[in-house]
Amino acid sequence: MALTVVGSIAFDAVKTPFGERERMLGGAAVHFSLAASFFTEVRPVGPVGEDFGPEQFAVLEGREILTDDIERVAGGKSFFWRGRYEFDLNVAHTEDTQLGVFGEFEPKLSAAAQAADTLFLANIQPDLQRQVRSQCGGARFSGLDSMNLWIETAKDSLQAAIAEVDCLVVNDAEIRMLTGESNLARAARAVMELGPRAVVAKQGEYGAALFTGDGFFALPGFPLEDVRDPTGAGDSFAGGFFGYLDGLGREADDSDLRRAMGYGTVLASFNVEEFGTERVARLSREEIDERFEALRAMTQFEPLPAA
Amino acid sequence: MALTVVGSIAFDAVKTPFGERERMLGGAAVHFSLAASFFTEVRPVGPVGEDFGPEQFAVLEGREILTDDIERVAGGKSFFWRGRYEFDLNVAHTEDTQLGVFGEFEPKLSAAAQAADTLFLANIQPDLQRQVRSQCGGARFSGLDSMNLWIETAKDSLQAAIAEVDCLVVNDAEIRMLTGESNLARAARAVMELGPRAVVAKQGEYGAALFTGDGFFALPGFPLEDVRDPTGAGDSFAGGFFGYLDGLGREADDSDLRRAMGYGTVLASFNVEEFGTERVARLSREEIDERFEALRAMTQFEPLPAA
Repeated sequence: MALTVVGSIAFDAVKTPFGERERMLGGAAVHFSLAASFFTEVRPVGPVGEDFGPEQFAVLEGREILTDDIERVAGGKSFFWRGRYEFDLNVAHTEDTQLGVFGEFEPKLSAAAQAADTLFLANIQPDLQRQVRSQCGGARFSGLDSMNLWIETAKDSLQAAIAEVDCLVVNDAEIRMLTGESNLARAARAVMELGPRAVVAKQGEYGAALFTGDGFFALPGFPLEDVRDPTGAGDSFAGGFFGYLDGLGREADDSDLRRAMGYGTVLASFNVEEFGTERVARLSREEIDERFEALRAMTQFEPLPAA
Repeated sequence: MALTVVGSIAFDAVKTPFGERERMLGGAAVHFSLAASFFTEVRPVGPVGEDFGPEQFAVLEGREILTDDIERVAGGKSFFWRGRYEFDLNVAHTEDTQLGVFGEFEPKLSAAAQAADTLFLANIQPDLQRQVRSQCGGARFSGLDSMNLWIETAKDSLQAAIAEVDCLVVNDAEIRMLTGESNLARAARAVMELGPRAVVAKQGEYGAALFTGDGFFALPGFPLEDVRDPTGAGDSFAGGFFGYLDGLGREADDSDLRRAMGYGTVLASFNVEEFGTERVARLSREEIDERFEALRAMTQFEPLPAA
C-alpha cells in the first residue's frame, strides 16, 4: 500500500455566493492527498515556493501525508489560482492563474515515490505526466486526470499519456471533446481503445459514471442542502477512489471499482461542504463510512415488490 | 387499476443529427400512454383535429390504450410542434408551435376517466390541470409535469395546481426556477412544502432523482450507444413511473417508488432509441423487464469487499 500523486500544490482565492477566501491551501495534489489519506499512505509530488510554510505542511502532516516529495524552491512562488462561482455553483470562472514554480517543474521522484503501488497523475501538462509515469514502472494501478486546455494544445501528448494508464478520470464534457464523440458510452469506449481498462466520467452535481470493458456503473452526487465551495471536488473524488483501491493491497475487481466510486462520491461531498480543505482536513473515517452506507441506501432498489 | 392522463396529442416534426421526420405521432399524453400501457389500463384525455385519423388511433389501440376520451374536433387541426436538436441532443430548439384545437380545450372527462385510481397531468396550462384534477377527486395518486413557460406566466396558478397533487415530475432546472432555490435538495423540500409528498427531478441524460419526506433516491440514465431522438423521453419516463405504480393496484411505498423510477428510466431509454413513438410502439414487457434488471445490476454495490 503506497500511493503517489503528482499535481498542483497551490494557494487558491475563491469567491462563491456563500463566502470567500483570499488565500487558502489548495491544488489538485492537496485535495487528492487529503481524501486518499483516510485509506492509505499517500505521497504528493510537486513544487512549492517559499510562501508555502509550516502552516500548510501542518495540514498535510495532520493527515499523516508523506511530504518528502514536495519540493520547496528557494526564491519561488507557489502556484496560485483565483476563481469565482455564480449562483448555481456549477461553473468556475478563472480570474487569475500564476504558475509560479510550476512553470519550471521537472519531476524527479524519490525512490519511495517511485515504488508506489498506485499512481495518480493529476491535471498537469501531459508530457510531465508521462515523465512521472515512466518513473513509476511498478505501479499496479494508475490513473490520469486532464482538462480542456491540454486537449486543445497538446492532444497527441495527452493521448500518449492516456495510453499508459489504467484509468482515465475526467469530466464527461472532456471525454466527448477528447474523442469527438457526442455519445458518452461511445466516447468512453474510444478512450478504452487507447489503452485504459476503466474510464470515470465526472458529472459535477450529477455524480459520476464508470465504464469498464463490458460494464457500466453510476452514482449520483450525494444530496446536500449546503454546498459552499466546489473547488477540489473532482480531486477529492479521485483521492477517495484511488485511495480506497490502493488500500486494498491487491488487484481491484469490478466490485472494488464500484465501492471506490462510492468512496470518491463521499469524499467529494464532504469537500464541497466548506471552503477549500477545511472540511476534509478534520474529517474522520467513521463519518466517511457512515455517509458511504447512506449513499448505498440511497441507490439500491429491489427486483420484486415488497410483500 | 385505471390511469387517466391529460396532455397534448400531437404531430411532431423533428430533426436530429441522426435523421428527421416531417410529421409523426407525438405529444406528451401519447408518449406517456404508450409507456404506461405495459403496466395498466390507460386513458388519454385531450383534443385532436380532423387530421388525426385511423393510422394514429391504430398506434394507440395497438397497445390497448383506451381512446374514448380523445375528442376529435370537427374542422380542427391537431397540436403541431417542430423542433431540432444539435450535436449533443441535450437541447431542443423549438421552431414552430401551432396549438390548433388545444387553444380551445376545455377538459370534460367521461365517467370512466373521472374514476381513475391514478391521474397524471402532463404539461398544459395549469388552470386546465386544475380543472382535470377537480374532476378526478377519487384518485389514489396524482402527478403533474410543467414547463418554464408556466413558471414565467402563470406561477400562482401552477403553485395551486402543484398543491393539489401527490408528486411533481419536472426537469431539475424547473424545480430551481419555480422555487428560486439553486440547491436542488432545498428546492425539492420547498416544493414538498406546497403539498406533494414526492418530487421527481428529471435530469436528461444524467437520469432522475426522487425526493420524498425523508428520503432520496437517484438513477442514472440507461447508457445507450445509439440515441436518435430525445423527443418524449420525459413523458415516457412519467408513463413508466405512473403506469407501474397504478398497476400495483394499491398504495405505493418507498420501495415501489424506487422501482417506478427504474421503470421510468427504462421506458425513457427505449423511447430515445428511435424517432417519436417508433420504438415503444413495438416494445414488449419482456424487453422492459430485461432492461430493468440490467439497470439494477448497473447501480448496485456491496458494502463489504468481495472475498
